[in-house]
Amino acid sequence: MERLLCGVDIGGTKLSAALFRSNGTMVAKETTKEHVGKEPGEVLRVIAGLVRGLLDSESLGLGDIEGVGVGITGHVLGREGLIITTSNFKIPFLRYPFVEKLGALLPGTRVLLDNDANVQALGESMYGAGRGYGSMVFITVSTGVGAGIVLGGKLLRGHNGTAGEIGHTVIDMRSTHKCTCGNYGCAMALSSGLFLPELYAEKLRAGMSSRIDIDEKDVGSMCGELLAQGVSCGDLISIEIMNDSADVIGTLAFNVFQFLDPDLVVLGGGLLNLGDAYVKRIRSRFLDLSKDMMLEEMEIKTSELGADSGLLGAASLLRE
Amino acid sequence: MERLLCGVDIGGTKLSAALFRSNGTMVAKETTKEHVGKEPGEVLRVIAGLVRGLLDSESLGLGDIEGVGVGITGHVLGREGLIITTSNFKIPFLRYPFVEKLGALLPGTRVLLDNDANVQALGESMYGAGRGYGSMVFITVSTGVGAGIVLGGKLLRGHNGTAGEIGHTVIDMRSTHKCTCGNYGCAMALSSGLFLPELYAEKLRAGMSSRIDIDEKDVGSMCGELLAQGVSCGDLISIEIMNDSADVIGTLAFNVFQFLDPDLVVLGGGLLNLGDAYVKRIRSRFLDLSKDMMLEEMEIKTSELGADSGLLGAASLLRE
Repeated sequence: MERLLCGVDIGGTKLSAALFRSNGTMVAKETTKEHVGKEPGEVLRVIAGLVRGLLDSESLGLGDIEGVGVGITGHVLGREGLIITTSNFKIPFLRYPFVEKLGALLPGTRVLLDNDANVQALGESMYGAGRGYGSMVFITVSTGVGAGIVLGGKLLRGHNGTAGEIGHTVIDMRSTHKCTCGNYGCAMALSSGLFLPELYAEKLRAGMSSRIDIDEKDVGSMCGELLAQGVSCGDLISIEIMNDSADVIGTLAFNVFQFLDPDLVVLGGGLLNLGDAYVKRIRSRFLDLSKDMMLEEMEIKTSELGADSGLLGAASLLRE
Repeated sequence: MERLLCGVDIGGTKLSAALFRSNGTMVAKETTKEHVGKEPGEVLRVIAGLVRGLLDSESLGLGDIEGVGVGITGHVLGREGLIITTSNFKIPFLRYPFVEKLGALLPGTRVLLDNDANVQALGESMYGAGRGYGSMVFITVSTGVGAGIVLGGKLLRGHNGTAGEIGHTVIDMRSTHKCTCGNYGCAMALSSGLFLPELYAEKLRAGMSSRIDIDEKDVGSMCGELLAQGVSCGDLISIEIMNDSADVIGTLAFNVFQFLDPDLVVLGGGLLNLGDAYVKRIRSRFLDLSKDMMLEEMEIKTSELGADSGLLGAASLLRE
């Protein structure tokens, strides 16, 4: 029988594992929150337990899987199996030999690791919108902006493991918007979920009025869902923020074209729930900038893997 | 005897060919201006004549070279051997099957083609500052800003052959400086030789006074050499322009890090003649932006190949 692929997605609040056939079909999935607030060693035991439980539930053993692929938010050195930092959430992995340690808990099992944007990119390239394309850049617009670069079926990881961190490229040098990285004018600081409260507050301060009863006091609650509501009920601030974000992501897609000239850009992440108007404006900004510079137009598609892209992406590391 | 490598560098005003040993040592070189103003077919005959003359002068024949590598300014599809446009200078190559046509004039000889930034990058990677590095981005700051990306010894060319055109990435979205590509705020429009007159004029209009007797009338003469003179005699406008350009190139190097995380960035091109102060400020801007984001610092070096980098780079296509 064909061996299955196991994918693990470690998030700040949710830890999931799933089994897939090599064609990408999901066989089984388990989710837990047991890892929250635990020390690294305990988190690893939770992961190993989750994987073993998942196999048990299908009457399978470690010998029935090709290995375990893991995706995690943070700075990861995939080739070395090392987590450098996971500052974006609260599990204190720091220069942590993740692959070695998890491997010890799952003897004889191949363990692979990469960051969440990279694994989503790889998954999308193998099983989603990127199938059949030679080169693809996956851009996720979510809490932050991340990306993964797939060239000839392989992830471009870079010297420090940080290739594709294009959310932190500077596209507005003189911006007053400060990013979490400490710089100003990063694409991420001008377009992503984390900065929606600040972007909304700025419009309020400029004298615009909210149609969804958000004022400076409760602007902290502004998020992708609320922005989508604002857009749908004609709140001008929400519409402007959506358009500004789309212009930034469209400009970023243009910079991707100038840097890498890939066959395809795939857009994913929660802010795409803003819908067609958002994606249409991203494409239109991209085309305005690229004009006649392309011999053949770079395609911009949206993610096809949806909610389980992190799990399938992690599993796809085993097939890279 | 070891076969030699032949490199050809086609510029708007100068056409050069040279023979190299496989270790990069130059054996002979010829330059002509005969091609200026000629039709493509005639330009090709000039190139073939130059190569044959060069071989004759060394009592060699076509069988004594591994082939001919050619570098040209413009949009090139290297793999297809096709020149798409050469709008930056006056030879009207347009969707021109260059490799096929030159090959017909040099029977039995392997002919390879790529654009000038790409060949310089490859040359630098094989014979210059990039030797021994796994991945390298070469950035040339000259009339314009170009780049070539070398990953694992191979040029990244992209779908349209335009990968590495990072001079046209937008880094100042709200800029009023228009680039030759029609967009605003491209790195190139804020830093390169072609835009020095405009940048100088802007400072004059802002009320700064020139110490090198440049006024709005003759600001068109502003060029890299004049800027260097201005800097060396303490002209504040020249110093500000140099610093602004360095800040843009340093920011671009940071974006290169976030995109590709290469082992090394190599800087080349005429504006580097501004000297140590310029390069130092580029490095310092890069380090200010990258702070603690690098596990290991990305090196920034300057080109080691100098004036003949285009020729040696073109020849290095034969060894890619």
